[in-house]
Amino acid sequence: MTLPPALAFLLLFSLAFLPRGDGGKVLVFPVDGSHWINMNILVEAMHSQGHQVTVLRTSTSWYVSEFSPYYTSITIFQDKPQHLESQDSMTEFLNRALEIRRNRGSFWGFFDFYKNFFELFGENHKDVAKLIISIFENKTLLRKLNESGYDIVLTDPVFPGGVLLAHYLKLPLVLNVRWIISGEAHFAFAPSPLSYIPVVFSQLSDQMSFIQRVHNMIHYGMLVYMYHYVSNPPYQAVCDEYLGKNVSIMSLMQAADLWLMRVDFTFEFPRPTMPNVVYIGGFQGKPSKPLPLELEEFVQSSGDHGIIVMTLGTLLSDPGPELSEMIASAFAKLPQKVVWRHVGKRPAALGNNTMLVDWLPQNDILGHPKTKVFVTHGGTNGIYQAIYHGVPVLGMPLIFDQDDNMVRLKARGVAETLEVASLTVQSLTNTLKTILEREHFYKQNMIKLSQLHHDKPIKPIDNAVFWMEYVMRHKGAAHLRTESYRLPWYAYYCLDVLAFFVVLALLGVAWIWASCKCCIRCLTKKRKTKLE
Amino acid sequence: MTLPPALAFLLLFSLAFLPRGDGGKVLVFPVDGSHWINMNILVEAMHSQGHQVTVLRTSTSWYVSEFSPYYTSITIFQDKPQHLESQDSMTEFLNRALEIRRNRGSFWGFFDFYKNFFELFGENHKDVAKLIISIFENKTLLRKLNESGYDIVLTDPVFPGGVLLAHYLKLPLVLNVRWIISGEAHFAFAPSPLSYIPVVFSQLSDQMSFIQRVHNMIHYGMLVYMYHYVSNPPYQAVCDEYLGKNVSIMSLMQAADLWLMRVDFTFEFPRPTMPNVVYIGGFQGKPSKPLPLELEEFVQSSGDHGIIVMTLGTLLSDPGPELSEMIASAFAKLPQKVVWRHVGKRPAALGNNTMLVDWLPQNDILGHPKTKVFVTHGGTNGIYQAIYHGVPVLGMPLIFDQDDNMVRLKARGVAETLEVASLTVQSLTNTLKTILEREHFYKQNMIKLSQLHHDKPIKPIDNAVFWMEYVMRHKGAAHLRTESYRLPWYAYYCLDVLAFFVVLALLGVAWIWASCKCCIRCLTKKRKTKLE
Repeated sequence: MTLPPALAFLLLFSLAFLPRGDGGKVLVFPVDGSHWINMNILVEAMHSQGHQVTVLRTSTSWYVSEFSPYYTSITIFQDKPQHLESQDSMTEFLNRALEIRRNRGSFWGFFDFYKNFFELFGENHKDVAKLIISIFENKTLLRKLNESGYDIVLTDPVFPGGVLLAHYLKLPLVLNVRWIISGEAHFAFAPSPLSYIPVVFSQLSDQMSFIQRVHNMIHYGMLVYMYHYVSNPPYQAVCDEYLGKNVSIMSLMQAADLWLMRVDFTFEFPRPTMPNVVYIGGFQGKPSKPLPLELEEFVQSSGDHGIIVMTLGTLLSDPGPELSEMIASAFAKLPQKVVWRHVGKRPAALGNNTMLVDWLPQNDILGHPKTKVFVTHGGTNGIYQAIYHGVPVLGMPLIFDQDDNMVRLKARGVAETLEVASLTVQSLTNTLKTILEREHFYKQNMIKLSQLHHDKPIKPIDNAVFWMEYVMRHKGAAHLRTESYRLPWYAYYCLDVLAFFVVLALLGVAWIWASCKCCIRCLTKKRKTKLE
Repeated sequence: MTLPPALAFLLLFSLAFLPRGDGGKVLVFPVDGSHWINMNILVEAMHSQGHQVTVLRTSTSWYVSEFSPYYTSITIFQDKPQHLESQDSMTEFLNRALEIRRNRGSFWGFFDFYKNFFELFGENHKDVAKLIISIFENKTLLRKLNESGYDIVLTDPVFPGGVLLAHYLKLPLVLNVRWIISGEAHFAFAPSPLSYIPVVFSQLSDQMSFIQRVHNMIHYGMLVYMYHYVSNPPYQAVCDEYLGKNVSIMSLMQAADLWLMRVDFTFEFPRPTMPNVVYIGGFQGKPSKPLPLELEEFVQSSGDHGIIVMTLGTLLSDPGPELSEMIASAFAKLPQKVVWRHVGKRPAALGNNTMLVDWLPQNDILGHPKTKVFVTHGGTNGIYQAIYHGVPVLGMPLIFDQDDNMVRLKARGVAETLEVASLTVQSLTNTLKTILEREHFYKQNMIKLSQLHHDKPIKPIDNAVFWMEYVMRHKGAAHLRTESYRLPWYAYYCLDVLAFFVVLALLGVAWIWASCKCCIRCLTKKRKTKLE
């Protein structure tokens, strides 16, 4: 029996989209919220390569759905949501963050900022440690995980539950990462001189004056404090109880086989790195699709002026009445049309040129040729979409890494930043006008940056998949990982060797001194004897 | 008019092999000897992508021919060959090196080794500086180079004449590199903690005991001495005279746009690196072709025993009668057949199983399934061919980086090393037997290493071409390069910031001390007054 050619083609075509039979098994331990949005992209990519993906989700999860065409899930019961999954604690955190921004630059503002951050993250670290204990106590689940024959654990170590689990299950570890419990991930595995590597929250660039380096060091001190007294203790307790006395969460992370870093060097400042780091920044990028008809008509109606796209992310989709009115008034003054993702009361000052939407096909609209500026809170998902499509950015950062992200874009000359806490109609209008009118600067720089971003020998998502499969094929990537983290700190910095040379030098000096003294004594003795 | 399909296909086929019309212009300033062998591979690859390559060669060049289908050459007159191009000075250096190897481990042997090395390289650096001066004084040549509109300078900075020239011509700089004038190239641009980064000539691995770290530091000291007193001065004189007072050869190298590193991490120990470094180790690798008939017959006659391939490189193709007899006797004792690249008198002890050749299709014979062991001096070109084809190695290192290369292979469990200076028939036979008999170790490890080496998302040579073209497209790669090398050393290490904090702490202590003193004085005064 032979198939008709058209049917055979269809069969082959559909086979190409089916998972391949030779796939491996990936266990994913995700972090909720925006971190899941990008983890899900990796999950989909691994599924499309024929791998079976299992996602460990919590019963209170915000974003990670139980059912998906791309993975099977295992749900772990949690009696209440983690702090970062709870709308109440996030709203409290956000309000406090806005208040603190008003006192920026003051001595107490500085400590208040860290206090607010430590409180939220400290609680969430405790939640994650509790979750891991519940897994380690669940013998049925552990047996199931052990018997499933996973090839790797893929996890986001900003909350490193998955790191502990991978060690427990003795599986190779792949991290989808930018932040870990001590700050920026590079600091854990690559030399990071504070003279040109700005730490998170410092809002500094890679070129610092003396005073800026002093600031950088102070911020670094706060992160060291955070690591030792806020984020590490809950995990250390788990390690001590379940993994043995000599295990620490930091050494487990440092022993990871692969770090998939969610940045690239069109965005991040150049810095030392290591062989087992793969830069996948922009892996979320994809060409834009046509807009829904109504939106396309609105966008086209903007004529030569083009449009402005605004969203402040999931957490601040409703920025409150005062801020909303201010933003609406500013937009109303512009000849451009505006598409604004806004949840909440419709501002009274809203102009005819502004369309409110409660959901936005963000990638598609950023890829539209009429889009002139992207107004954003400064999360990396949105930023990389802007870089992908070459759209200048106006940032209104609020929390977490958003300020630091905007510093990076400003340093490239592709963005401006406004302080939400002291926003005025005037400042918003003026900054938007500046970006729109100085196209030869912002737009041109962004187009150049976009070209650099696209100019890679392999697409970031393909690179991510290649290296995950590499770890699966070779059951790890030990030859790419330095073992230097096992050295005691004084040996790492060769302080013992330096001390040895100093002692040697001192002994040398002492010997010369003693010899000279001896010679002089002999000579004087001889002289004395002669004189006598 | 339509072409017949066969002719059209032929035309398209031949067009695919013609240089593309949109190519750029590459100026190559090579280093002679084995360095040219691998530079030439990059030259051919760039030519095949449609770029016009111009090679600056000297009139006394050893390896760089005047005519080539892949490049046009410009010949610069030199009245006598550079020291490393002269057979006389190389023979003298080699004989001295052999003699020094006999005194290895002794105090004076250590200094003799460096003296011999410094003398040869010091003279050659002077030769190169002289060559560059002759170029800078040749106004006709400079005009020609300036008017040719080159896009990049590609050079090997072990002798950094090309680095000076690129700066003079204001062209983006791409380095095909492993060594620079201060030792291993990474030390110039990436943090290199001496606790786990062995320096060249130390013969240490990345896992060192305290005593080994002391040794590493001493070797590092010798390289620092070499840089300041042997290799740098001739170039600094050229900088001062022709490029301005604030220019140094080290800062020019650090400002390079791209470092094409001739290693990968199947060979090199894992270590910190930077974003503008591309690892192209193994770019010389290619599948083997069938052997010439006579050689194939000889190889096949080895039966199940297989063959041993031996070559000690260009410089030691004739190892002298004593060593040759010893090697011949050892080979004669083995059941394997041996193919030995040997120039000079035929050893009397030569067995029937050994075939002498004065030239070897090295890649083809290493790729032959009957090849069991590769006996080599330990140059990287040969080593990477062995890794490519999965052949265990017996190293007999002599000079330069050969000992350190063998340390890397031994650490991977794919090689053994013998000391040429104390070689015996017994030791050679035994070591060969060990490698042959313990196939499950050496051969299996080498196969695994070979698999890792081949498992890359993009072939090393294609990666090299991509990144050279990247620099051409974007007229540099400034965003991948840190500018931290411009910082003064105390600022790089934040010593000024630390000093500031120490002073602050001391002032704090002094203030507390003064306050306490003041309080006590007040209290005692009061008490006194009361008592009075």
